[in-house]
Amino acid sequence: MKNKIKVGIVGYGNLGQGVEKAIAHHRDLELVAVFTRRPREIKTLSKAVSIDDIFTYQNAIDVLLLCGSSAGDLPHQGPLYAKAFNTVDSFDIHAEIPSYYAVMDNAAKSGNSLSIISIGWDPGLFSLARLLFAGILPQGESYTFWGKGVSQGHSTAVRQVPGVKQAVQYTVPVRETVKQIRQGLTPKLSPQEQHERICFVVPEPDADPKDIENSIKSMPGYFAGYNTTVHFISETEFAHEHTGMPHGGFVIRTGSTGTADKQQMEFRLSLESNPEFTASVLIAYARACHMLHKTGERGARTIFDVPLGCLSPLSNSDLRKSLL
Amino acid sequence: MKNKIKVGIVGYGNLGQGVEKAIAHHRDLELVAVFTRRPREIKTLSKAVSIDDIFTYQNAIDVLLLCGSSAGDLPHQGPLYAKAFNTVDSFDIHAEIPSYYAVMDNAAKSGNSLSIISIGWDPGLFSLARLLFAGILPQGESYTFWGKGVSQGHSTAVRQVPGVKQAVQYTVPVRETVKQIRQGLTPKLSPQEQHERICFVVPEPDADPKDIENSIKSMPGYFAGYNTTVHFISETEFAHEHTGMPHGGFVIRTGSTGTADKQQMEFRLSLESNPEFTASVLIAYARACHMLHKTGERGARTIFDVPLGCLSPLSNSDLRKSLL
Repeated sequence: MKNKIKVGIVGYGNLGQGVEKAIAHHRDLELVAVFTRRPREIKTLSKAVSIDDIFTYQNAIDVLLLCGSSAGDLPHQGPLYAKAFNTVDSFDIHAEIPSYYAVMDNAAKSGNSLSIISIGWDPGLFSLARLLFAGILPQGESYTFWGKGVSQGHSTAVRQVPGVKQAVQYTVPVRETVKQIRQGLTPKLSPQEQHERICFVVPEPDADPKDIENSIKSMPGYFAGYNTTVHFISETEFAHEHTGMPHGGFVIRTGSTGTADKQQMEFRLSLESNPEFTASVLIAYARACHMLHKTGERGARTIFDVPLGCLSPLSNSDLRKSLL
Repeated sequence: MKNKIKVGIVGYGNLGQGVEKAIAHHRDLELVAVFTRRPREIKTLSKAVSIDDIFTYQNAIDVLLLCGSSAGDLPHQGPLYAKAFNTVDSFDIHAEIPSYYAVMDNAAKSGNSLSIISIGWDPGLFSLARLLFAGILPQGESYTFWGKGVSQGHSTAVRQVPGVKQAVQYTVPVRETVKQIRQGLTPKLSPQEQHERICFVVPEPDADPKDIENSIKSMPGYFAGYNTTVHFISETEFAHEHTGMPHGGFVIRTGSTGTADKQQMEFRLSLESNPEFTASVLIAYARACHMLHKTGERGARTIFDVPLGCLSPLSNSDLRKSLL
């Protein structure tokens, strides 16, 4: 395929590595380089380039995928690179999205570029589902369930408990609640009624499992109030069973129309690799970013602003023929 | 709410009636009139107006919802009204979508208006899901399952069998196949492996049920080759249990990314009333049609071209704040 869309990756954590792996499946895109602070130390599959040289790539890259963290990297990197490149990022601090949007909109406009922010699955595809469902069924109730999947924040919290050597925390939808919701009931639910928490812990040899379990279960803001289960396992079992990054969840809405009370819409994800899937969403929106920039769009956009037709490499007329 | 979006309905079958019922839940839209050939005979809930007077409503209506049939009404009505009104329709003859699009694009451009065609759930939301899923997971397999739900075409076919007084046909996904697909297998499936067909028939008093059953099961193009079950029931049971119009189904895709083989996306609908739900989709796209027309868009569009943000009555900045 000629004229592939040229993509660069900034940041080489789980997400950047996910993009590098997943992009091979998208034949109309081509990875030009991974930009990193440590091009010599980090072992990338593709070309690694010092982040200091990134601006020399302005004419060689169509879209930059910003794969840094929302707290530490994007507030600085986003506006810096949006002034010179089209960008797609996964900024996910809900409360700060409006201010981040404003900053990115200014930067991208000043750079004559287009920046699509907060892409991924939540925020991202799940946001899109919530919007779509409420637009069609304004009278109704939406629920978002996450899991079964690893919560990084909760896993980190468990690892900080004294006596814990290694740990992972899975967030799991409460089965009985899910059953009710799928039946079309629309109860008011507390967070604790929606999800339970399951921890797998490798204790230090001299630690008391009872103390660890109590510390975890009573941790305010993370576990207190939740149905929490703590399993103690060996390092070997941990290495074999708990180092993947599966995730998923679903958005569901039951609403009423004229006479029917139970019109139900659901969008569900079940993911073997959360980072590779999130990366794949970013890649599809890189395609859209390039396409919309070519038609003259400038400034910041979110997932709500992008016609889904832009996510496909097919032309509009082929889409109408083959997919509608 | 001031400045409600003013909507007219053309055609008063199941879909037109569904719009009339469902629109009450959309507080930013207002139904101005139902346009019909027989304004005196048909009992509408709202104002009925002769279709002959429709062009006098050009300044009173923002978007016209064309609720006629794809075969009999839309090929004529679509371009006729697109020259004078913004329109949304549910044209669903797959093979003819490209030519219908071309005609509507010309008509709407000549009328300085905007027409969104082929809206509903399939074609429509299911098309959108197929596009979204393939854009994100290009390497994978998509499946569309319909039901459990009433197929109008198959029900009509059964009613034409000699000795059948009344009948309905439900299309039902094959449970074992669905189980395999949800587990992440990606087999090649024949239509018969995906769906089975269940008929409820009220026989004429003098008819032989065996003859009816054989005629149905051997009907080429409709039932031959399918796992078909025929139940004979009384008129009373038929009236109580089989006059609703439930439907639903799901689009599911399992795809691979770099190392993960089972990344699964699913969009599911479970509907008590198919016409009222389809009507609700049309209503949400009427909102989008009005919004996009105000920003200057002209000509024909499909569900692939419309940013989902336009389906919400909220402003872009409120959407970013509350739904992202």
